[in-house]
Amino acid sequence: METVTELTNQLVASYARVGGINHLDGKNLPSKRAIAAITQDLLRLLFPGYFDEKLIHSSEIKVVTAELLDSVLGALEDEIRKSLEYNPPSHLPKQNITTAAHSLTVEFLGSLPRIREILQTDMEAAYDGDPAAKSKEEVLVSYPFIEAIAVQRLAHELYLKDVALIPRIMTEWAHTRTGMDLHPGAQIGSHFFVDHCTGTVVGETAIIGDHVKMYHGVTLGAKSTAGGQQLRGKKRHPTIEDRVTIYPGATILGGETVIGAGSTIGGNVFIMNSVAPKSLVIYDGLDMRVLNKANKTAVVDFQI
Amino acid sequence: METVTELTNQLVASYARVGGINHLDGKNLPSKRAIAAITQDLLRLLFPGYFDEKLIHSSEIKVVTAELLDSVLGALEDEIRKSLEYNPPSHLPKQNITTAAHSLTVEFLGSLPRIREILQTDMEAAYDGDPAAKSKEEVLVSYPFIEAIAVQRLAHELYLKDVALIPRIMTEWAHTRTGMDLHPGAQIGSHFFVDHCTGTVVGETAIIGDHVKMYHGVTLGAKSTAGGQQLRGKKRHPTIEDRVTIYPGATILGGETVIGAGSTIGGNVFIMNSVAPKSLVIYDGLDMRVLNKANKTAVVDFQI
Amino acid sequence: METVTELTNQLVASYARVGGINHLDGKNLPSKRAIAAITQDLLRLLFPGYFDEKLIHSSEIKVVTAELLDSVLGALEDEIRKSLEYNPPSHLPKQNITTAAHSLTVEFLGSLPRIREILQTDMEAAYDGDPAAKSKEEVLVSYPFIEAIAVQRLAHELYLKDVALIPRIMTEWAHTRTGMDLHPGAQIGSHFFVDHCTGTVVGETAIIGDHVKMYHGVTLGAKSTAGGQQLRGKKRHPTIEDRVTIYPGATILGGETVIGAGSTIGGNVFIMNSVAPKSLVIYDGLDMRVLNKANKTAVVDFQI
Repeated sequence: METVTELTNQLVASYARVGGINHLDGKNLPSKRAIAAITQDLLRLLFPGYFDEKLIHSSEIKVVTAELLDSVLGALEDEIRKSLEYNPPSHLPKQNITTAAHSLTVEFLGSLPRIREILQTDMEAAYDGDPAAKSKEEVLVSYPFIEAIAVQRLAHELYLKDVALIPRIMTEWAHTRTGMDLHPGAQIGSHFFVDHCTGTVVGETAIIGDHVKMYHGVTLGAKSTAGGQQLRGKKRHPTIEDRVTIYPGATILGGETVIGAGSTIGGNVFIMNSVAPKSLVIYDGLDMRVLNKANKTAVVDFQI
Repeated sequence: METVTELTNQLVASYARVGGINHLDGKNLPSKRAIAAITQDLLRLLFPGYFDEKLIHSSEIKVVTAELLDSVLGALEDEIRKSLEYNPPSHLPKQNITTAAHSLTVEFLGSLPRIREILQTDMEAAYDGDPAAKSKEEVLVSYPFIEAIAVQRLAHELYLKDVALIPRIMTEWAHTRTGMDLHPGAQIGSHFFVDHCTGTVVGETAIIGDHVKMYHGVTLGAKSTAGGQQLRGKKRHPTIEDRVTIYPGATILGGETVIGAGSTIGGNVFIMNSVAPKSLVIYDGLDMRVLNKANKTAVVDFQI
Repeated sequence: METVTELTNQLVASYARVGGINHLDGKNLPSKRAIAAITQDLLRLLFPGYFDEKLIHSSEIKVVTAELLDSVLGALEDEIRKSLEYNPPSHLPKQNITTAAHSLTVEFLGSLPRIREILQTDMEAAYDGDPAAKSKEEVLVSYPFIEAIAVQRLAHELYLKDVALIPRIMTEWAHTRTGMDLHPGAQIGSHFFVDHCTGTVVGETAIIGDHVKMYHGVTLGAKSTAGGQQLRGKKRHPTIEDRVTIYPGATILGGETVIGAGSTIGGNVFIMNSVAPKSLVIYDGLDMRVLNKANKTAVVDFQI
């Protein structure tokens, strides 16, 4: 027991000395565990019958939905209140924080039908775009993409309302589960699909058009972040126009980089410049070495 | 409470309007949670003493195994029955679904000894191939590969029996935990090893020979999936022959792409063509820039 | 029931026949579940108030810390004892294993204040280096990097004390959650930061200087592991000097490869040679094809 006392004294002394990684006596931060539970309930509201363990009959759907909404409303309101107390958004009128948290939560839950409509287009893109998908049910019960994009579209709503911490905690929850890191700030069009997901990263200021298809290991990142906090708010991530396909492992950097509509970006390509519409960008390293530079046959059947 | 009623009405109206992502009044789908639990129990049956929290003595192994098998048999039979009700395999005689589910489950569990034999070769390949492995026990208790390949080999058995949804739910469970996405359809030889695992993707129609070693971030993918659902069933993913090594981040695409036996594929290489046996394919971008094209010394000690 | 008996007999026969993946009647190995719980408690000790669900007040911190330390001490001592029984470190005097386990545990827990000091520099590097970070609290509650590096620094202490299995089980726990595989053996300097984390791998004998910034999908790996177990203990992974930045998807291999101080390694680059200090290594494949070889403007604003 003496050992524990000594170890405690050393550690508590360290808490006083190295302050930056403590959070004592501060404001109560949103709870990661609570936000994980809320996010799972929001997925159940978006996809009724899929994230529940048992089948829901139409006759009971109204009661089940009302109960779940009531519970989510209460829980999310608590977390949003903590977030507002921690960091009140600049545009928030100086009204009572509790009232603001309630309004924000109700407004957010009111956006669920709209989010469902765009998720429906993502689900169609996933099924239409992947010959390995045997049915739409398979996409819904086993594709990590569905979970990742649903959580990003939820978090994006809260991001637009300047709610601190919660959107990032939500997308990190999905990142842990799917391996894909979609920042809540990214603007993503309809009919989006990322196959396999692991290692794909989409930065805060990226803009993605409609009907964009990507694979795992794709980065839409910043060119240089050596400027650090001075770059905050600046557009640092690429714009991907409509109907672009990006193969695994491609890295596309820079806030002024625009991938023109209808382009195809090959696997493992590294890009820091804009690309005209309908371009095919492909790393033919192997062709150069094995097939001779002139041979472009391999490239042809890669094109969309 | 009025707010909740209003939100509920909007959402329920959306369920009626946007139908494709609902699953109401349909057939009961296999449960992700149940399949996760079953998969963990199957791992305990494959690796007795490793996935259990306490040591199993030989004297009790028969009783412990019988109890676990009995419980897995019942649980898996339930899920397979749901799968058959959802999508009866075309070759299934129109007998009672319940009987078919029972036979399929018993047949599947009867394949466990055979699966153990091939997993034993994978475990040896992992230990022999990684100088960082201090013991076979370390491989078994801490390498994500063991879990990922065991689950793929289990799921592959069910895939061959045309069981819908369950194989993909199983491999996605492993994908979430290990970051590696091995499709249940892939045909994988003996003595397979993937180090680190994260981001490696092996597609549905890939064929992998014996003694193949891969690293994280390797893609065995489809050349173009622009054909979408029309390509279903076609061989879309590469063939990797015996004794090939593939370094991190290599992307190999196409159903007609064959990597010849004994070849080494370097890190970050992008390939859409076949490679002759005993080839070394390597991206020497840096050599071209820093060491001059002619200097190939760096390449030599890379070769197996 | 007869079916179960038959399946059991086949499986138990397989346990006797295929021995290498069993662990029956052996020594009790450290428990993965116990080590996961201990690791989470260690994170609570390192970051008081962040990994707890409710705010801790200064007045209660001493009591809370003492209770947690007492519980961790007991639990970790149990696991370390199992590890020492399984594989006694060569330098350990032949004293009672139980006493050795206790001393090792106390010594390890005594290193927590020192580990907190270096983690403080990592947290500063993460906040300073990422314009997407809105606050230090956001970094702590939502960046996977913090968890991954904290666990590696904890595991590294046990690795230096030759404790078997436990350090790898700890870093694999973090690998599963963050997608980043930092080996417990890697020597990592202060002010380290890896953004996004997924797919980044740092090998056992890698050496990383101070103020190094990396992204997801970066490999610090071994050139060839064809030598397998014969290479054990040899330096097989690169050395990264101070103030180096490594962009997503770069693969750097080899124990004699040194990336000189102040260098920048571009995305998707593949390197097996040393690079002089202040180098910029960049794959300009796209420039060569689209912008013409001579055009190096794109390269300029990439430089730090």
